[in-house]
Amino acid sequence: MTKKIEIVPIAFVKNSRKEPTDDNWSEVISEIELASDVPTESLDGIETFSHLHILFHFHKSEKTMNGAGHPRGNTEYPKVGIFVQRKKDRPNHIGLTTVKLLKHTGRVLTVANLDAIDGTPIVDIKPVLKEFLPNDSIKQPDWSSDLMKQYWKK
Amino acid sequence: MTKKIEIVPIAFVKNSRKEPTDDNWSEVISEIELASDVPTESLDGIETFSHLHILFHFHKSEKTMNGAGHPRGNTEYPKVGIFVQRKKDRPNHIGLTTVKLLKHTGRVLTVANLDAIDGTPIVDIKPVLKEFLPNDSIKQPDWSSDLMKQYWKK
Repeated sequence: MTKKIEIVPIAFVKNSRKEPTDDNWSEVISEIELASDVPTESLDGIETFSHLHILFHFHKSEKTMNGAGHPRGNTEYPKVGIFVQRKKDRPNHIGLTTVKLLKHTGRVLTVANLDAIDGTPIVDIKPVLKEFLPNDSIKQPDWSSDLMKQYWKK
Repeated sequence: MTKKIEIVPIAFVKNSRKEPTDDNWSEVISEIELASDVPTESLDGIETFSHLHILFHFHKSEKTMNGAGHPRGNTEYPKVGIFVQRKKDRPNHIGLTTVKLLKHTGRVLTVANLDAIDGTPIVDIKPVLKEFLPNDSIKQPDWSSDLMKQYWKK
């Protein structure tokens, strides 16, 4: 059943954050530049959207957690499964973030709120449509709100 | 620069929709069952979240659009880049949807609003946190709202 799937980078991140760190991502503005074999037309019209979903590869992560653990190793948080966390050391090492598109110039997008370090390979870019956002209220446990307190702060 | 990345299915979709179709996805309730080599503990505590991001492989798609085209081939819509659409025939063939979690029983999640057909390989599951949703208003072009009119309808 478990067939391998091969994917390739379609773009790369350029920004000032060279090493993985947990918090304060809002201060980072990133450029996303298309890989050399991807046509410029693949971004045509992207400036008609305000937000994008960016799927990227946690390329510096060399560990994989498969089962359950305390988020950030914090024993004050409950032990939960890897698919109940957004931790980078996960099966397939794929990250997903909603970013704000600030500028589109040719093969480069300038975005805010991308929590990926310099050099990160991007594997997909999708426009955010209202119709793909949750249409009812979000329930999440207290530990997750606590963990996020410093995440976006400058 | 363009290094291949290997990923594997971590779960599979079971539902009543056997072939790719464009619309009326809200009528489909899906089960997501973990792949045999993924531990049950990977889902521990998932029921404390109401919504999940599901990343999946468009495994029936054999074409790839790299440049720009009319969404759904409809010439009344403008020609836009592949990364300005959510079309399945895209580089890397990865889909992303926010689903509502209805039930968690052992190795199986029952979810609503998953627009993936029966047998689809899932490559990641992430909890939806409010802090990862856009915190300002979404701008999107009229064609995208028109295209979505029947998408979720029963």
